[in-house]
Formats: sequence, structure tokens, C-alpha cells
Amino acid sequence: MSFQNPVFIPGPTNMPEAIRNACSMPTIDHRSPVFGSILAPCLEGVRTVLKSRDAQIFIFPSTGTGGWETAITNTLSGGDKVLAARNGMFSHRWIDMCQRHGLDVEVVQAPWGEGIPTERYEELLRADRDHRIKVVLATHNETATGVKSDIAAVRRAIDAAGHPAMLFVDGVSSIASMDFRFDEWGVDVAVTGSQKGFMLPPGLAIVGFSKKAMKAVETAGLPRAFFDVRDMAKSYASNAFPYTPPFGLMNGLRLSISMLLDEGLENVFARHARIAEGVRAAARAWNMPLCAVSPDLYSDTVSAIRTPEGFNATEIVTRAASQYDMAFGVGLGDVAGKVFRIGHLGSLTDAMMLSGLATVEMVMVDLGLPIRLGSGVAAAQEVYRLGGKVRAKAAA
Amino acid sequence: MSFQNPVFIPGPTNMPEAIRNACSMPTIDHRSPVFGSILAPCLEGVRTVLKSRDAQIFIFPSTGTGGWETAITNTLSGGDKVLAARNGMFSHRWIDMCQRHGLDVEVVQAPWGEGIPTERYEELLRADRDHRIKVVLATHNETATGVKSDIAAVRRAIDAAGHPAMLFVDGVSSIASMDFRFDEWGVDVAVTGSQKGFMLPPGLAIVGFSKKAMKAVETAGLPRAFFDVRDMAKSYASNAFPYTPPFGLMNGLRLSISMLLDEGLENVFARHARIAEGVRAAARAWNMPLCAVSPDLYSDTVSAIRTPEGFNATEIVTRAASQYDMAFGVGLGDVAGKVFRIGHLGSLTDAMMLSGLATVEMVMVDLGLPIRLGSGVAAAQEVYRLGGKVRAKAAA
Amino acid sequence: MSFQNPVFIPGPTNMPEAIRNACSMPTIDHRSPVFGSILAPCLEGVRTVLKSRDAQIFIFPSTGTGGWETAITNTLSGGDKVLAARNGMFSHRWIDMCQRHGLDVEVVQAPWGEGIPTERYEELLRADRDHRIKVVLATHNETATGVKSDIAAVRRAIDAAGHPAMLFVDGVSSIASMDFRFDEWGVDVAVTGSQKGFMLPPGLAIVGFSKKAMKAVETAGLPRAFFDVRDMAKSYASNAFPYTPPFGLMNGLRLSISMLLDEGLENVFARHARIAEGVRAAARAWNMPLCAVSPDLYSDTVSAIRTPEGFNATEIVTRAASQYDMAFGVGLGDVAGKVFRIGHLGSLTDAMMLSGLATVEMVMVDLGLPIRLGSGVAAAQEVYRLGGKVRAKAAA
Amino acid sequence: MSFQNPVFIPGPTNMPEAIRNACSMPTIDHRSPVFGSILAPCLEGVRTVLKSRDAQIFIFPSTGTGGWETAITNTLSGGDKVLAARNGMFSHRWIDMCQRHGLDVEVVQAPWGEGIPTERYEELLRADRDHRIKVVLATHNETATGVKSDIAAVRRAIDAAGHPAMLFVDGVSSIASMDFRFDEWGVDVAVTGSQKGFMLPPGLAIVGFSKKAMKAVETAGLPRAFFDVRDMAKSYASNAFPYTPPFGLMNGLRLSISMLLDEGLENVFARHARIAEGVRAAARAWNMPLCAVSPDLYSDTVSAIRTPEGFNATEIVTRAASQYDMAFGVGLGDVAGKVFRIGHLGSLTDAMMLSGLATVEMVMVDLGLPIRLGSGVAAAQEVYRLGGKVRAKAAA
Repeated sequence: MSFQNPVFIPGPTNMPEAIRNACSMPTIDHRSPVFGSILAPCLEGVRTVLKSRDAQIFIFPSTGTGGWETAITNTLSGGDKVLAARNGMFSHRWIDMCQRHGLDVEVVQAPWGEGIPTERYEELLRADRDHRIKVVLATHNETATGVKSDIAAVRRAIDAAGHPAMLFVDGVSSIASMDFRFDEWGVDVAVTGSQKGFMLPPGLAIVGFSKKAMKAVETAGLPRAFFDVRDMAKSYASNAFPYTPPFGLMNGLRLSISMLLDEGLENVFARHARIAEGVRAAARAWNMPLCAVSPDLYSDTVSAIRTPEGFNATEIVTRAASQYDMAFGVGLGDVAGKVFRIGHLGSLTDAMMLSGLATVEMVMVDLGLPIRLGSGVAAAQEVYRLGGKVRAKAAA
Repeated sequence: MSFQNPVFIPGPTNMPEAIRNACSMPTIDHRSPVFGSILAPCLEGVRTVLKSRDAQIFIFPSTGTGGWETAITNTLSGGDKVLAARNGMFSHRWIDMCQRHGLDVEVVQAPWGEGIPTERYEELLRADRDHRIKVVLATHNETATGVKSDIAAVRRAIDAAGHPAMLFVDGVSSIASMDFRFDEWGVDVAVTGSQKGFMLPPGLAIVGFSKKAMKAVETAGLPRAFFDVRDMAKSYASNAFPYTPPFGLMNGLRLSISMLLDEGLENVFARHARIAEGVRAAARAWNMPLCAVSPDLYSDTVSAIRTPEGFNATEIVTRAASQYDMAFGVGLGDVAGKVFRIGHLGSLTDAMMLSGLATVEMVMVDLGLPIRLGSGVAAAQEVYRLGGKVRAKAAA
Repeated sequence: MSFQNPVFIPGPTNMPEAIRNACSMPTIDHRSPVFGSILAPCLEGVRTVLKSRDAQIFIFPSTGTGGWETAITNTLSGGDKVLAARNGMFSHRWIDMCQRHGLDVEVVQAPWGEGIPTERYEELLRADRDHRIKVVLATHNETATGVKSDIAAVRRAIDAAGHPAMLFVDGVSSIASMDFRFDEWGVDVAVTGSQKGFMLPPGLAIVGFSKKAMKAVETAGLPRAFFDVRDMAKSYASNAFPYTPPFGLMNGLRLSISMLLDEGLENVFARHARIAEGVRAAARAWNMPLCAVSPDLYSDTVSAIRTPEGFNATEIVTRAASQYDMAFGVGLGDVAGKVFRIGHLGSLTDAMMLSGLATVEMVMVDLGLPIRLGSGVAAAQEVYRLGGKVRAKAAA
Repeated sequence: MSFQNPVFIPGPTNMPEAIRNACSMPTIDHRSPVFGSILAPCLEGVRTVLKSRDAQIFIFPSTGTGGWETAITNTLSGGDKVLAARNGMFSHRWIDMCQRHGLDVEVVQAPWGEGIPTERYEELLRADRDHRIKVVLATHNETATGVKSDIAAVRRAIDAAGHPAMLFVDGVSSIASMDFRFDEWGVDVAVTGSQKGFMLPPGLAIVGFSKKAMKAVETAGLPRAFFDVRDMAKSYASNAFPYTPPFGLMNGLRLSISMLLDEGLENVFARHARIAEGVRAAARAWNMPLCAVSPDLYSDTVSAIRTPEGFNATEIVTRAASQYDMAFGVGLGDVAGKVFRIGHLGSLTDAMMLSGLATVEMVMVDLGLPIRLGSGVAAAQEVYRLGGKVRAKAAA
């Protein structure tokens, strides 16, 4: 555990030391105005990052998983119907959570590596004449497969069906790293955590509620207490929390947002896109396909790379850790052993990414894979050297 | 916000810099063995602090409030009956949470300033012939009133009634600062957080389950997902979490426990008792009674001090913050404006406490209260100088 | 070594955590423009703190002692005559250093506890018809005795004698805590370090040279290399150092200056004066005289307090450390065992100072001194409560 | 200034965060036993790193340059003769310092890129019949050229000539990174700093004196005060410094030594050798010769790489900083513009080094140099993958 090498797991991400220092602040009185000076810019800043004008933002001492629970327990009642696609581990888990809370989930199965089947969504919504479906779930970025789904298209499907269902989006591994448009896409609840694009330690669930979602809160019947947004809203009005707030993490969030906005959201997204394209160029040089089946699905925060048949992809992750002290992500669920994952989000430079690619190459050669040392690095260097201009062409 | 003065709120407490640094560790791969080397000593260490041989320990990225929710949602079903005393703000809130989850709470009202009425508990349990009461709730230390209740006596009441109800204890502001005996007292679920005796930032719910409580988990009908101890238990078995673990806070918890055990648990308790006795001696010198009505109820982690009739105690807290940059606790709920609170738990020395008492004296004189400067300080110095020997006599 | 209690030695002082973090910055390329962005505000800021318009500032990786050496080796030649008063340990040491470098020091003995005898200075300067005296040394604040000398009066003595000697001032324990007027007082070289008023770790010698002093550099014959200001000046011109610069400490210095100027220099001085007056009020309450023989000599950064005849003052320091984990200063040289010293400079609040006074009281009672617990604290509280207004009267 | 990328200047080096935290400790009383618990292991540990049994170690708040001054001013008198080779910028500077202190330096010119001409040393020593030469200077590792000289051979030359001169070695950029044998090589004074192999911030001069050198201290006539080892020795005997010690940096040094010994000195040296060999393999792949003229001279801490005729090597450093936020070293003095330097010492992993090489490749292609992207990286990967086994062959 040397902490000298960056991590390349798809979150928690590398954290700027300044953000860690902000999180590590000494104790403040959380009932004093000092806390208000932390809370207010956090709420305002998250709204800006979500590209929303008036989403109501809630921050819980929890994780993205707690954010999912916040979304459903505050808006739904037992037996309510929910539409969801299962195309990866994280969409799977959200579905599982809904079922545990007694919701009736209409699950659309999709191959891991594909995006949300929006046409199928539209069919099902059209078929739902009496509007039993209350909520459509959408995982913006499947961290398990490196697949980005088209949320605007999900919204179009709902609208095309003339359906009143709300749209809940898991943006845990996309928000603050990839473009997210709460208002434009008609999102009703967006969920994320602290440990991805916000470059913070884990420990915060960050959610945004539309007016429509807030309306649903009033009638939602699922029991909730810790995650009750009504208590939060009431306490926020007096610059407080209903319980002890995680002031340090929130102080870090305030700085994180400030750093993101200083860099410029679009520049942050472009940086992620460039670094990601370098990784994809390396995978092409290695002759290894992505798990994501087509370029429009490529995630800019994580790439799941398929290894040759008969090879256990997890060995790459194991050997990288033991021999080179570097962390990558294993394949999960349906693609366990078939892919390894490179996380490329958060606080990351081109040079850091190159050290990751160079290390993976050594590992793959060590393990007998037919890779030429330096080949993927060279492909990525080509991308990074041109500052990502190559990307447009590659994607064209 | 100078961070030079200690805080004297009853939590979050002052944090040793070494613990903050441990919490601020760079990102690790939470699926690697490194995380196991953090998790294992945390679980083992919490068990030791609880004085239990085999309580099952769970750590959630949450707060003490989330710990309460963990306790009830994992062991009870809708409509189950719970017995609880309401003798302060925090017992009040736990009752409220139970009610929101659809439990049937038998509330025993007790004056704020008194402890749990164990005789009344016994009566009610005896009267409950068909054992509808599944759980008895007990707040070990009421942070709002500075009242410590006798948990052993609650256990005796249950046993005397020959009742099979489980005993759930809120030890948020007692555990790791005051003696807590999970096994000896027959506690079934103990709940605490990170930001009190463990001297960490807020962000962890820490709970212990007895075998009996774990048994109840199997049949509990309340919906839960984020707080499901079954997922936790299953994940712990492979050194993991069901979602992203708060590895930094847990690394801090590992160090905190190590520091507590190095000092010696009994020494930690004695230090808290001595510092608390100094505060009480000061209050006596000021002629101000504690909210806690008798010496056996005095908390060693927080003192709620009653100000004279007609005086708004909250002004003390406000002026201490604005004029002297020092944080104390206001009165809450039934005793709002009637008491101010001095938190004296966590990372604290006699000298730090004296700076708090000296500052409160200045504030009180500023506000026209009939206090002689130095009088409370002198009384506390007398206690601290003798290393707390005076305490035995005072309490006798 | 708990780091919970403040230190009350007369430097190194308590350091704000933000300053320590600034000092702890990761490695930068000291030949890059980044370093220039640290160096320039340091030089400009020190000049501002010295109240000079165009003193040339030099910063060495060294200590105040290195600053003394910088002053003399850059301006004098072997055998040159220097006038100096010996009225404490630090003036003694500077004289010793001059002698080691082969200078001819005219030493004016003065009792420890008194200031620089400016009348005697004037006599000797008048008597020095052929101007053999090249430099007059003056220790602004004798850290060993808590005596502040009148530098303006030294300048008047030089001018009254019509003497061209330069005026070199040791401001190690005064600069940035007490008023210092480089230009108005006609100072030619001012010397300080990082670990006192600048609230930094030790490691920097900080000096200012007047035009006259810079002129003397050209002809000075004493050998020097590491401390050669010519190399420094030349390197500064290209934003560099002649060797590896202490970039972290300098980054901290930049922040320290910014904090001092944000608070306002005059407010910083007033804070030191108020805290010091509280300490003096406590000493009066204890019936213990200061080492400084008259109020005009009282230092606002350190108080040397005389204990009763026959009592070994060092025992106070020893017991405070061993029993209460708090650091005070022992008596040095001529006043060893006769005084103990309370440092009250740098990053300090009234409340912190009260914890120091309360602790000293416990120590003194422990050691059998006829002190009433709380008496000194009460006297200081009176001062602090009124925000130092009492001070004017006390000094009148 | 993002601090995300490592630096590749030949010092200050990348610093482990744990070491920076140790340096950033809160204020201690430097006259208390706590300081002794820092000082003693520092002195003992430096001795171990120097591979000496009883060298006397001195630590000054200064830099390596101050270490040079310590060496000569404590052992020599004005006019004393010194033998030195000038084969790079740092040997040049030490000679210059000697001359400023009035020493008579016999300078042996050697081409930059070559080592110390030990045969010429032997000739001159043999010719010095009346032993006017008091000291032989040797720069172990010329940071400007990446040339390691053979100190054992210098000792053999002195002995072969039957000459009593002392051997002073500048080990600033070798000690703690490359093998150094104080006793075996008969070194009389060894000089280093904190900011290279010890992975600390700049701010310490660290020197070792042999018994013979300590003997010379008694008669040395050069004036010194700040750097006087007699004052240091005397103060060390009571766990103190003659002035305020840099306790934080020394606390960091204590940890640094502990980390070096935990890794194992020979392992540390092997790691440096492996990483260096990767850099050299990359240079070979780029068809660029080192400044060091033969393999036996190759430094394991810094490589100076010659760029093609007509190309300004400094542009590489400039563009790497501006475009890729990465720091390399420029050529100095005689080789300015002809070489760029890659520092590869201190806290460094193979993966970090690969990010440096990959970045330099992008820079060189950007600047039109005939380099194939990935070529140098691949050559280094080959070395790192085999854990440096290739090195033996390459050097054979």
C-alpha cells in the first residue's frame, strides 16, 4: 500500500490532496452559521453540475446505494410499478432494491454491453394504458460494462408514449465526469455519490428531485426515516441537518464543485473524453474489443475490455496489484472473468493514464497474452499528443 | 472559523490530528486485501469496546440515526410493539422513527432530566402477558439532558418480568467514553456513531447485534436494503461491503480503537469522569443546577446546566461563538432556552476543559449573570489537580 | 506528546493548521515559474510587515541565528568594531558570534531585565570620534527576559551622536507580533526567523537590508558563501535561489503573511498586547514580579515571571510538562531557576491563554507556592472580557 | 500546479505523503525529552545509511550547500590547499565556495560527462611532497551530468600516494539512493541534504565527520558560528541544538530512515538501479546518448540525455511543463541546451517512471524529434517487467 501509483478502478477515484484536506477539516459546530456557509454552496453547486435550474438537492451521509433508496422510498408506495432495464450489475442491483421494498418491477432484460433498449421501453409504456408504471429507472452509465445509455432517448420514449411516469436516473459514475442534463432530459430524480466525478471519499449520497418528484413525496407510502427528504428539506431551511451532517465531506464537496467549475464543466467532460479515447485506442492496438458493443455506447469514465476466450481476465487485476502495486477493476456478474475494467474518471491526467496503460501492458505480457509492449501506450500517446482532436475522427 | 479553540458541543467532538490524517488516506481498491486489513480490526475492536465476546458488528456509511434504523428494520415487522421511554430529545426521535416505520410504540413519558423509569418498564412488561412487546428501547445517555440511565437495571426489569423482549440501546453519546457492557447487560442491539467517543468525523453508524437479534433478522418483515445486515454479513465474509465502503473513516476508526485501547478503556472512562466532575464542580460554584436531577444520573460526556429563571440560556451559546469563537450546545426541545450544554467527551484534556470553563465564565459575566470570574475554574482546577480523587467523595 | 494542548514556549509558536498544510505542499520544480509565484509575495510581504518601502529582503533556509550571521558577514570585515548591549541570553549570543568572526565588540553590560541603555550607547558613539564603530546591535525583544527595548531611542542616540554607524536589529521574537518600523526607525538590517510571529516551523532566516547596508556589502571582507546576499539577490532576479529553496516553508510564509494582513497588522499587535496584559494581570494576582523591571519594557510576546526566593522556577516547567502535558519556557543564563517564561505569541486566542494560566496555577499549587487557584485566571479574564480596554489604564 | 503528476527533476524528489505528514507535526518544546526522541534516531539512522560505525553526524537547518560550508569551515584554515576536480556544475560550485573562503584550490579540469580523474589525483598527491594539500574533494554523483565517480578509487589514489589528506565527499544526490560506504572508502566528511534520497523537503544539511575530521576541527582557523560542529556536538550531548532545531523536518527524517531500512538499503539501491536502467534503455531506443561517457559512470539517480546537434534540449523541459504539467531538469553550465535531465530518485515506482518516459516521448514528437512514440516506453517496460534482471546483461 504505497499510495504512489494512481488507482484505475472505476471509483472511488484518485482524490486531489486539496480536496482530502478540505474533507479533513477540524470539528465545527454544525448548528452554527459556519455550517450554513458549507451547505448552501454545496446545494447550489450540485444543481449547477446537474444543469438544473431548480432541482431540489439532497445530500445524505450514505452512498449512491442510499441515493437509490432515497429516490424510491420517498416517491413510491408498496406495490407501485416500476420499469427498468437490466443491462449490468448496477442496474441489476437497483432492481433488486426495488423488489425488496415491495415494488412491482417490470424488468427489461438486455445483454450486458448494450444500452437501455429505449424502443422496448416505449412499447411497454404505450401498453401501460392505465399508467400503472409510476417510475422509469435508467442507469446512465453502467459501471460494470462501461456502457453509457442515452437518457434523452429514454425521455423521448416516455414522451412519445404520452406516459406520465417519472424518470429516475442513476448517474453515479457519470455525473461530474460526463454531460448530464437534468432539466433538458426531464429527469425527475438523479442519483450520484461522492466518490466518483466529485473526487471525494465515499460517504455521500447526492440526489436531485424535480418538482414532480417532490410532489410524489407527499403521497409516497413506503416507510422511510433516515432517508426522508421532507426532514432534510425542513432542516436545510434553517441551515441544518436532521442529524449530524458530514460537514467535512461536504466541505470537500464545496471545494470539488469549485474546482470543477474553475476547470469548466465542458472542459472536464472533454478531458474525460480524451483520456477515455486514449484507453480505447490502446485497446484497439491490443486487438481487444470493449464490452460496450458500439461506439455510441462507449463510456468516458470506465472501459470494460474483453480478453481473449479462455483467458481469465481477473488475473490481470490480481497480478497488477501484486506485482506492480496498481489497482484495476475486475469484471462483475455476467462478465466476471471475461473483462477487466480501467476506471478513467475523477482526478486524472494523461500522464497518469499512460502509467496505467504501460503497467497493464507489462501485466498482459507477463501473463502470456499476445501483446506488444508499448503498442497501446503509443496509440494513447497519439491521442493525448493531439489533445484529443483525433477523437472526433475515431468516433465519426 | 479559526480552529484554534476546542469545541465543547456534545459531539462531533474534537478530533486528534492523527485520526483525521488516517481518515484522509488516499484511495485504495476496496475490493483488495488492503481493505480487509482495515475492516477486520474495526469489527474486532468495536466488539472489544462494547465488552462483548461475540456480538456481530456492522458498520454503515451513515450516522447514529441510521444505526437506529438498522436496529429496528432488521429485527421487527410492521405493527410490532416496542416499549420506550421519552426523557429527552434523542429518545423522542427514536420513538418517532419507530412510529414512521409502522411500529406500535408504548411510550413511557418521563420528565426531561430523569433517567429511564425502570420500575414502570417492569410493570408494563409484567402486564404484557402475551409478549406483544418485541423490543425495549433504552437511551443510555440522553445527550439533550446530560442524563445517564442504568442499562443494567433495564435488563433486570426485563428479566424480573420474565419477558423475552430484546433490549436495544442507544449508546451514541456513551460508547467509548463511558462504561458499556454489551454482554453483561444482555444488550441485543447497541447503536453508536463515529463522531463521539470514537473521535472521528461523522459518517459511520456502528452497531452490534446479539445472537438473539441476529435470529430476529431472519423473520423481520420491515423493508430494508441499504441498512440490511444480511448483505453486510455476507459481504464481510469476503472482506467487502455490499457497496462502496467508507474506507477512510474506517481507517480512522481502526486508529481510534487502537488509541483507546492503548490509553486503556478504564483510563478513558476515568478521564471522562474526571473532566466531567470538574465541569460539575464549576456549575456548583456558579450555583447552577444540572438538568440531571440526581448525581447517579450525571453523564460523564455532557452536562446540561440550568440557568436562572427568566434568562435565555441560548444567549450563552450565541455569545460564546460570536465573541470568543467557542462552541457550546444549546438546550433542545423541552429544555430549550433553559439549559446550555457543555460537551466533554472525546479528545479532551483538563487544560482544554479549563479554557472552556473560563470562557463560559466571561460570557456569563458579559451577560449579567451573577457569577464571579474564576470561581468555576478554581473549582475545576481543584478536581483536576488531584487527578480526580475528589470525585469519589463528591459522588459518595 | 498529545498535541492537544497549546504550547506556551516563546517560540516555536503554535501553528495554524492551514499554514502547516501550506508548508507541506508536494514537490514543485523550483526552477519553474511556480516558484516565482511563491517567492515574490514572500519578499513583498515581509517588506510590508517590516513597514519598509524598499528594504531588500532575503530568505535563507536557516534560522534567526543564521540571520545574525547573514547580517554581519555581509557587511563587515575582520577587526571591524561593533557596539552591543548584553542584557539577556540572545544579545549575549549575538555578541559571541561577532567575536567568533573576529569582530571587535564593545560590549555594554546591562542587568538582565533592563532594556538597551541608549544613553550609554550615545556616550560611546559620541566618544568614537573617528567612527571606528561600524554597526550598533540592538535586540528588540529579549526572549530570555521578556524585555522590549526602544529601537527608536537607539536610532535617536546614533543620530544625536552624529554617528554614521549602521543599526542592526534582532527582531526574532518581535517582528510580526509587535510593532516594528524599519524605515521610521532607520534600521539597516533587521533579522527574524520563521518560527515566531510568522507562525511557521523553524527553518527560515528572514532579513531585511537597507540601501546603506547593501552598500556595505560591496566592501565587506568577512568570508561568506551560503549566506552571501549577493548570490541571493542575483538569483532572486530570475525567480530562483542559488541553491535548493525551501519552497514549502516559503509557501507557508506566503500564507502566513496573507493571514497577518487579513487580520490587520495593528490588530495582530493589539491581540498580542491584550493577551500579554492578561498574563501580566495574572502575575500580579499571584504576587510575582516580572523579570522586566518596568512597564515600558514589558514584552507583548513573552513574559519572564520571577518566582519567590529559594524556589527553583524550572520545577514549574518540568511539572507542567510531566503532569499536565503543557510546555512553558525555563529561565536561561543569568536568570536560570529564577524565572519561568510564558510565551504568548503567534497563533493564540484568549481562551488558549487561559488554559495556560489555569494550568500554571495548578502546577504552582502542586509545588506548594502560595497561590490561590483561579486568581490569575480571574485577573486575565477581566482583561480579556473587556477586550483589552483595561490595558491602557494598567499601563498608565 | 496540479500536483497530480510526479516530478522528474533530480531533486527535490517526490515525497511520500507519510513523510510530509511527519514533517508537518505540530509544535513541540524543543528543549523537552520529546525532541531527544527525534534527534537520537536521526543521528543513528544517518550513520547506518552512510555505512559507518562511528562517524559523527550533524544535521543543520540548511541545504547541501550549507553542508559543504560546514565541511570546509570546520576543518581548514585560510590559505589551506585543497585538491578538487571540476567535472560538472556542482563540483564547480564547491570549488568556488572554497575559493571564497580563501582556500587555495588545485583544480583538475575534467570534461563534463567524465568522472573524477583519479590517476591525475594520484599524480598530484604524489607530487605534493610536503603535504600542503589538506583535503581532497570528490563529488560522488554529479547531478548536472548524471555521472557517478568511483570514491573507492579516489581513496586508493590517496593511499597509493601515501598522502595524509582528508577525503571529503559530496553525496548530495547519491546518499540514500546509491551505495555509499563511509568507513570502507575512508571518507572523512560526507555531505548530503534532505531533499534527495531522503525524500524530504529541502531544509537540512546532513553531514558525517570521521575521527580524523573531528581532530581537524580543533585547529581549523576559518571563522564559523552557525555551522560550527563544536556547538552542535555540545548541544547534542544534552539532546538539544544550539538554536531552534527544525524538529518537523527531523521528525520526517526519522520516518524516512525507518522507511529506507524497512525496504532494505540494498533493495532501495536495486530499485534505483532498475528504474535508472529503464530510463537508459529508453534513451538507447531513442538513439540518444547519455552525457555520461561510459556505462561505469552512469548514475542511478539522474540521467542527462544528449539531444541531437542543433536542437535546444531546454525546449523539452519547457514544453513538458507547459503542455503536460510535468517537470524535468534542464542542462546546466557547460551542457546547457545540450542535455535534458531525468531525475529518477527518491520515492518512485516503475509505473511513475513510465509516465515520465511516455510524456517525454510526446514532447519530443511534438518538437519534431525523430522519435517513435512508445519506443522508449517499450524498452523500459522490458526492463521493469523482468524486475531489472536485464540490467546485468546490459552492463556486462
